[in-house]
Amino acid sequence: MGKLCLFVDRISQPSRAIVIFCLANGIAMEESEVDLLKGDHKKAEYKAINPMGLVPAIDDHGFYLFESHAILRYLSSAYPDVADHWYPADVKKRAQIDCILDWHHTNLRPGSGGLTINRVAAPLLGRPLDEKAAAESEVLLKASIKRIDTLWLNKEGSFLTGNEQPSIADLSLACELMQVEFLGEEYKSELLSPHPKVKHWLDAVEKALAPHFGDVHQKLKAGALAFRK
Amino acid sequence: MGKLCLFVDRISQPSRAIVIFCLANGIAMEESEVDLLKGDHKKAEYKAINPMGLVPAIDDHGFYLFESHAILRYLSSAYPDVADHWYPADVKKRAQIDCILDWHHTNLRPGSGGLTINRVAAPLLGRPLDEKAAAESEVLLKASIKRIDTLWLNKEGSFLTGNEQPSIADLSLACELMQVEFLGEEYKSELLSPHPKVKHWLDAVEKALAPHFGDVHQKLKAGALAFRK
Repeated sequence: MGKLCLFVDRISQPSRAIVIFCLANGIAMEESEVDLLKGDHKKAEYKAINPMGLVPAIDDHGFYLFESHAILRYLSSAYPDVADHWYPADVKKRAQIDCILDWHHTNLRPGSGGLTINRVAAPLLGRPLDEKAAAESEVLLKASIKRIDTLWLNKEGSFLTGNEQPSIADLSLACELMQVEFLGEEYKSELLSPHPKVKHWLDAVEKALAPHFGDVHQKLKAGALAFRK
Repeated sequence: MGKLCLFVDRISQPSRAIVIFCLANGIAMEESEVDLLKGDHKKAEYKAINPMGLVPAIDDHGFYLFESHAILRYLSSAYPDVADHWYPADVKKRAQIDCILDWHHTNLRPGSGGLTINRVAAPLLGRPLDEKAAAESEVLLKASIKRIDTLWLNKEGSFLTGNEQPSIADLSLACELMQVEFLGEEYKSELLSPHPKVKHWLDAVEKALAPHFGDVHQKLKAGALAFRK
């Protein structure tokens, strides 16, 4: 019986979330790289796994699944050794995590993703830069960071909704926010400077998931540095 | 002890999904209208309930929640009389529903919502029309309908993923697709004509949820007709 297979590219933020989740929870897996810069995700062979032609996707012994949040929820439920804090069984606690994950799709995700793609990364994917779209995304990104600060980091615990340990929402949002490293460490520092609680939260996620969080972000850091040279 | 309170406007597609879900499952609730056209959603009083200033939101005896998919998941889990088919306990079946719900955020939702807002409804909300954005949304809408056809209606059952009974994904997507009635019955027919399976699915959702699905869509139909006169 083979292992769980992850189809990912560590340059993609939702891919990193899945890889880190498996490493942090000791879930045996094989990582199959789908190289976005080479267009592997658009090949027929990969579209047989994820017809949307996006990463990540998984093959859990014949069960194919895409959409990173669906994958994180699934792994939290299907693998019995995953601790409850990742996706709490309590219906109200779970609902708050679901709320953040759904909010993410139309806020932090298009903010951060839209900015990095349109300001710097589009040529890597064979598309033109678009400063108007980048500027719009940047407004959304800043508003989203402010929301994280005021809505979900307004309680005692270090993690979202005041939890003492990270959930899949912390992981997904932290990986997304890290994507702005494409614009430089300085840009990230400036972005977070009005929101020390968000900076503290991001550090807490990295620390709670050490060494995996740092390790899995190496490709992003290296790629961003090479790109900006 | 009061009832569950829904903060909704039936002109909004995710609001309708929540109202229909409660009616179809016999969940006692009070509907508190947040009139979008009057700007009720931007008032401080409402932002104390949902800081994002969007509908729907719920107050379940002091537990506030926003994001319609999170609400649908929560109600399916918190109210014990809700039948399993709405949000199956089986982890693989549930993961497939979660996948569709997550996919929705970046496909059918911006397709249908972006089209109706930018082509006809923006002035109702005090914003200008934007035909370029409308045309881009229309491309995404048509691609999304094709995906529903080929990815999730490719099995025997009438509902998404081949189920024999509707899930919260059927409900959310069907309410979204109905929003194009703003552009007229003829437009909707034309849009669905290349995809008889999608037309059949939408009819099956309406029939399975009769009379609630039709009743709750009356305001949309009446508003769209009045607007187009």
